[in-house]
This record gives sequence, C-alpha cells and structure tokens, in this order.
Amino acid sequence: MFNRLCVIGVGLIGGSIARAARQHGLCDSIVGYGREQDRQNLQTAKQLGVIDDYTLELSKAVQGADCVVLATPVASIESIFALLKPLWSDSAIYTDVGSTKGSVIAAAERIFGFVPDNFVPAHPIAGAEQSGVTASVNDLFLNKRLIITPIKNTNPIAAQKIQRFWEQMGSLVSVMDVVHHDGVLAATSHLPHILAFALVDMLGHKDEQSEIFQYAAGGFKDFTRIASSDPTMWKDICAANKDEIIPLIEQLKGELDKIQRLLETNDTRQLFETFTYARNARQRFLDQFDNN
Amino acid sequence: MFNRLCVIGVGLIGGSIARAARQHGLCDSIVGYGREQDRQNLQTAKQLGVIDDYTLELSKAVQGADCVVLATPVASIESIFALLKPLWSDSAIYTDVGSTKGSVIAAAERIFGFVPDNFVPAHPIAGAEQSGVTASVNDLFLNKRLIITPIKNTNPIAAQKIQRFWEQMGSLVSVMDVVHHDGVLAATSHLPHILAFALVDMLGHKDEQSEIFQYAAGGFKDFTRIASSDPTMWKDICAANKDEIIPLIEQLKGELDKIQRLLETNDTRQLFETFTYARNARQRFLDQFDNN
Repeated sequence: MFNRLCVIGVGLIGGSIARAARQHGLCDSIVGYGREQDRQNLQTAKQLGVIDDYTLELSKAVQGADCVVLATPVASIESIFALLKPLWSDSAIYTDVGSTKGSVIAAAERIFGFVPDNFVPAHPIAGAEQSGVTASVNDLFLNKRLIITPIKNTNPIAAQKIQRFWEQMGSLVSVMDVVHHDGVLAATSHLPHILAFALVDMLGHKDEQSEIFQYAAGGFKDFTRIASSDPTMWKDICAANKDEIIPLIEQLKGELDKIQRLLETNDTRQLFETFTYARNARQRFLDQFDNN
Repeated sequence: MFNRLCVIGVGLIGGSIARAARQHGLCDSIVGYGREQDRQNLQTAKQLGVIDDYTLELSKAVQGADCVVLATPVASIESIFALLKPLWSDSAIYTDVGSTKGSVIAAAERIFGFVPDNFVPAHPIAGAEQSGVTASVNDLFLNKRLIITPIKNTNPIAAQKIQRFWEQMGSLVSVMDVVHHDGVLAATSHLPHILAFALVDMLGHKDEQSEIFQYAAGGFKDFTRIASSDPTMWKDICAANKDEIIPLIEQLKGELDKIQRLLETNDTRQLFETFTYARNARQRFLDQFDNN
C-alpha cells in the first residue's frame, strides 16, 4: 500500500501502528522520528523491530515517505505541523491519531492558513494506560473503532487510502463530521475521564485524613481505572476539546442535582426509575460492545 | 461455633454466608427463611446443598437457632425486626449484613425502643452484580473487608463471636463507629454508584438521539460497570444513607466546578496537577487493594 511509512512519535499508538502495518504488509519500510529526549525510546523501537530506522531530523524522516503518521500527543500537533510545513510533499498522504479533531484541524489552519488536502484527520479509539513503544502491540486496533473526520477540501482518494490502511489493520472504520466526533468523544471518553479524576482527587484528600481507601472494593477499582491515565495526555485532550466538554460537565451537574433532589424528597420511586434506565442503557452499550 | 444457623434471605450474600459457614464447619445445621415469593429460590438453595432446609414461617426458622443472620435488603430490615420481635431470644446472637448501619440501628430502635444487646450490626464489603442463591459462592468473603459497628450496649461477647465467625470465613474484620462506617461507605461505594448511574442515565438519553455508545471503548465499560448493579438494592442503600451521601454529592459538584473553571481559564498547569494527584491517590488505593 505504501513504500515508506514515517511515524512521528513512536509510542504506544505510533508503535502499534508500525507493528500492525508491518504485520499486514502495508508498507515496505518504516522510519521513526522523535526529539532528542525520545532517543532511547526510538532505539528500543528499532531493537524491537517495530521500526526499521529512526532519525532526530524531520527532513530525513519524511524524505521519500509516501505516508506520514502524526502520532504525537494532541498538544504538540501544532508544532509538528510547523516543522513539517517547509517539508510538506504533495505526493505523500498525511494523517494523525489525535483524540480531538477540531483542535487538530484548527492547528493546521493556523500553521498553513488552510488544511492541506492530503492531510486526513483520523482517530483510533484504542489505547491503554501504559505508554511508550514497549507497550505497543500488533493488535491494538483489531476490531476497534477508527473514526476518519474528513473536511470539505480533504482529497477523497487520500481519505479512502487511509480508510483502507486502517481496515487492513483490523479496525472498524467510521467516517464522521469533525464536530460530531468531538461531541461523541467528549461524552463517551473525555467526560468519564474527568469524572474519574474528579472523584479520586476528592476522595484522595479524604483518604489522607481518615484512610478510607482501605475499605474500597472491586467496584471502586474498576470505576477509577481511567483515573490512572496519563495526566499530561489528558490535560491536553481536555483543554483541546473544552468547548464540547464544558456543556457536558454542566449537564452532569444538573443530573447530580436531580438525584440529590430525589434523595432529599425521599422519591425512591423516581430514583429506582433513574437507576433502572441507566442499567438498561448500559446493557444496550454492552450488547454493541461485545458484538464488535 | 454455632449449632443452628438461621439465614433470613438466602440470596447472593445469605447463600454465600451459608456456604462459607458450612465449608469452615462453623455450624451444625443451616435453615433458610423467606417469603412466599422466595419459595423457588429457597428450593434451589436446598437442592444446591447451600441450606439444609427452609421454611416460610419465621417462628419455625428461628426455633433453636443460636445465630440468626439478617441477609435481606436494607429496606426490609425494619419489617424483619418487627416479625422477629415476638420471637426474640436472649440466648441467640443476631447479626446483619446491611450496607448502611445507621439506618439498621434506627430501624431496631423504632421496633424495639432500643437496640437489643445481642444484635451485632455488621457489613461485609463484598458482592457482585448478580443476585439470588445461584450466584452465591464459598469464597465471596475471602480476604474481603468486614466491618462490625457495635454500639454502646452491644454485648461484647456477642460482638467477639460474630468477629470470629467472619474471621473464620476468611474476612478481614474491622471494628468501627456507625457514623464513620456510613461516611466511609458513602464515599467509596455509594457516591461512585450514584455517579455511574447518573452518567449512564445522561448518556443513555444522548445515545437514543445519536447512537454514541457504539464509539465508547473499554475504559467506558469498566467505568460504568457498577451502573449495572441492582436498582432496587441501590435506591434503598442511597435512601438509607442519604444524610452522608448528599454532602458528598455537593462536594463532588464543587470539584466539577473547579475542573470546569480550570478548563474555562485554560489553566492546564493546575489541571495537570489535579489529574496527577488523582493518579497518585489511585495508586495508593491499588497498593493497599492488591496487598489484601
């Protein structure tokens, strides 16, 4: 499919793309790019055979590459675009993996004055708490959702090629409007992360006073798992998608107000109906999730 | 330890107590009690060998029992006390498994005018989403916390015997003040359940509009697991412990206000610190949890 794949940022996601692309024969060679502080991770990536080679010079990294994957955290996308601008090739396809798409497109517009038509915004809904190339695996994207959010001037042939690229790595590809993507992910991913961080922040301070965590059980462990996610990555995602997230926080506070009122007025019938609706809604989610 | 164990309510918890008591030789015989609508479950319990026999007549159930375990949902404890009152034996020990202890003690006071000194309030911090005797297992309480909340007039010999009973079933027993228990459980269990129900209630309605659940991932699955808990049981627990829960809901709304403000003011440094504190606090919890 591609001759030379350039992966900018060979971490969990970038490394797993390289592994899957190689496994499925989607490119002839893979080069990794990173900064000076990424050197050891890049060396590991090469030793593990995840990439064929790496360089700390972006011009060398993109030289001859017909596909360039931006797999850095969303907060550094703009500076990567700035570095790529003088090296931009019309014959290559560029894509990214950012969790928020509006912010990536806005970053491109700020750097280029427009969004290059050979840049295809994409987002694999897959991940893990661990990071770095040592956490990368061949099948991170297998049977996982991938969303492509093309904009008006996105080259449809480039978009189709990126779609096939992900499908061949085993992903279930959807094409979606940018704003819709950011709204859906704010609801199903960003808000839950904020809630988990908020709860554990609050209870952590209580625990310092009176050691409550020793009485927390397995349900608490699962509920708070996403509060162990990378704080750097998540502060950036939340900041990048705040326009979608803030109204959802408002809405959730309203939902908590509702439950508080039901408790205050002893309206156990309505409380039961709210909890029952939630349980049924989760079952609807599970039925879809497990059928993937 | 006991001659005849009477289990009132042979569900997940009552059934697992019966299984563990038998496995560890803590009683000679076990009788189950339930209502007419529980007959099939009680038959199953007898067929499975969880109990030796059952009856729908409480007077027969408690006859000759030197230990009576109230393992019904917290909302029905008061009516069980009322039924037990004319049958109450000073030579038996009574105990319960309710998730909220203040409400159980208040129920006893309403029925008896005081809390009988041979009633030992207890709470095993263990459970599952499934219910009924078919979900019961031998080792539900193994290495799990059990909290005993004696009050002033609780007979210390009865309390010690219940402590040994649970220790022999493998539980890690703590003795705690009633109010402290209800505060700790509100924070580590009841509030997380309310949050999970609230989030899934809110997102379920969104999903009806625009099918967002198909893009939710594994993190969402874990985060919302407790929203699949039994709505009947949880509306009762929340209502029974609302005095502890409502201030925590208020506090959590304040925490969400804080994060919302950080997003609005682009204070990513403070956002990072909040998320990092939460991640470290969860690690502190995990270190304790995994060492149990």
